[in-house]
Amino acid sequence: MSTVLLSGKKLARLIQQKAHDEARDLETDGLRPMLAVVVATDDGSTHWYVRSIERAAESAGISCRIVDLGHDATEQVLASVLKDLGADPSVNGIILQTPLPPGVRTDELVGHISPEKDIDGANPLSLGRLAVGQPSFAPATARAVIEILDHFDIPVAGRNVVVIGRSAVVGKPLSLLLLERDAAITVCHSRSGPLEKYTKTADIVVVAAGRTGLLNGGHVSSDAVVIDVGTNVLPDGSLVGDVDEASVRGVAAALTPVPGGVGSVTTSLLLLHTTEAAREQSRALVRGTSG
Amino acid sequence: MSTVLLSGKKLARLIQQKAHDEARDLETDGLRPMLAVVVATDDGSTHWYVRSIERAAESAGISCRIVDLGHDATEQVLASVLKDLGADPSVNGIILQTPLPPGVRTDELVGHISPEKDIDGANPLSLGRLAVGQPSFAPATARAVIEILDHFDIPVAGRNVVVIGRSAVVGKPLSLLLLERDAAITVCHSRSGPLEKYTKTADIVVVAAGRTGLLNGGHVSSDAVVIDVGTNVLPDGSLVGDVDEASVRGVAAALTPVPGGVGSVTTSLLLLHTTEAAREQSRALVRGTSG
Repeated sequence: MSTVLLSGKKLARLIQQKAHDEARDLETDGLRPMLAVVVATDDGSTHWYVRSIERAAESAGISCRIVDLGHDATEQVLASVLKDLGADPSVNGIILQTPLPPGVRTDELVGHISPEKDIDGANPLSLGRLAVGQPSFAPATARAVIEILDHFDIPVAGRNVVVIGRSAVVGKPLSLLLLERDAAITVCHSRSGPLEKYTKTADIVVVAAGRTGLLNGGHVSSDAVVIDVGTNVLPDGSLVGDVDEASVRGVAAALTPVPGGVGSVTTSLLLLHTTEAAREQSRALVRGTSG
Repeated sequence: MSTVLLSGKKLARLIQQKAHDEARDLETDGLRPMLAVVVATDDGSTHWYVRSIERAAESAGISCRIVDLGHDATEQVLASVLKDLGADPSVNGIILQTPLPPGVRTDELVGHISPEKDIDGANPLSLGRLAVGQPSFAPATARAVIEILDHFDIPVAGRNVVVIGRSAVVGKPLSLLLLERDAAITVCHSRSGPLEKYTKTADIVVVAAGRTGLLNGGHVSSDAVVIDVGTNVLPDGSLVGDVDEASVRGVAAALTPVPGGVGSVTTSLLLLHTTEAAREQSRALVRGTSG
């Protein structure tokens, strides 16, 4: 059978356009949304990625402030910068970009990202709020999966979605988002035993484990929709997902490609979240309640 | 076949004893642990439950301060009391007892429970911390399920645990605790379709849906361990779980009874959490870092 490829490119453009429209509306109200990205590394590909966010932001009418603290920034300096950005009314969204300098505790730092500006859902409080149904930003990658399913009219309510991977940035928040939408979710991972036990009967399989070729055609049914969240760089520099695309194509009903699938939607959601945060913050100002 | 009944009574005594030993050790260091329970209802059964916590605390060497704000307490007063208790160094653990007066937003209030004293894991931040593996208290009921599995040497790593119910007090935190212990977890609920699709092949089924008779013998395999978290009061005043005990007995390998199962372990864990919180707070004082 022929497997439908679920490209994220058109959706990414639609979301980018929505962020752009929102930014324009905010500007009419005298507010130009601002995203701050905190960087503390010399890693070239990270800087490349941050510049790509900056370009996307600028083209959507969102200002982007890159706060480069250098590869030897201390935890204390990083914490202090995050707190300052939280208190700065001109900043609406904050991203703490990894990798961070050795010895710096990322877990501790993310707690200093103001929840109202935590547009990539990095603060544990954002995850907790998500779990209890309070307003909060999910990590953009987790939301990207939901947006792709919605965009292609793939229902999740009452269906079994198997999520492979239990990270705090994808597996766990995505499971919460799926539960909110009435899916039955199964979370498996590297220590949960044979994958096919769960994936063979799944309606939707989301792979977010960071392991090249983890899911192959033998793991899934012919009705399955497969969402590949993996982004693995091969020695030759090419980007592949966690799915063995050659074997899954021809078996599953649908598959997101890598590149051009989930990843292409993620950046546009960071921009949309920034405009959503700006809107909420301006409303809070009007209500006279900061934060 | 004969179904083993997994009573929680002995385990509850062991945990209560552990809390008692901890409290004695703390008292040797000049610190008598204190649990504060905030109440704002006239409901008789709630007061009965709170007094049962108080009795259990006192007999474990833990002071219990019941802060009764009356059935007409406002959200503002409740928030202010929770903040004061958070700042009070003589208080180590805080419970905000439901039900609360009509119109009071419980979701907002739990955010005012100091995470270090949130011994029943009610603050969304506690849930978020649990999700990312940071120190935090799980809701006592969720931890009770884990303690029962441990007590009876029932392994979860690499096995499929099906959790029925997606609440923030049981289903979600329990799923996180099980993932941390390398289980493959499946979460189903009232809108996820036929239960047996998931429960028939489960190694362990945890029912926490609050619906009498929800799980019956036809839903489970003969190897299954069934943990009943339900506490439903029948019109005649008797307490039953979510499991149709008569039909599951004789089918499943093991079952926790109601009453005398999970519920009996929960109160003892509130006490143990209070001593753990007191110990951590005294260490933080020694380190010179409050909270």
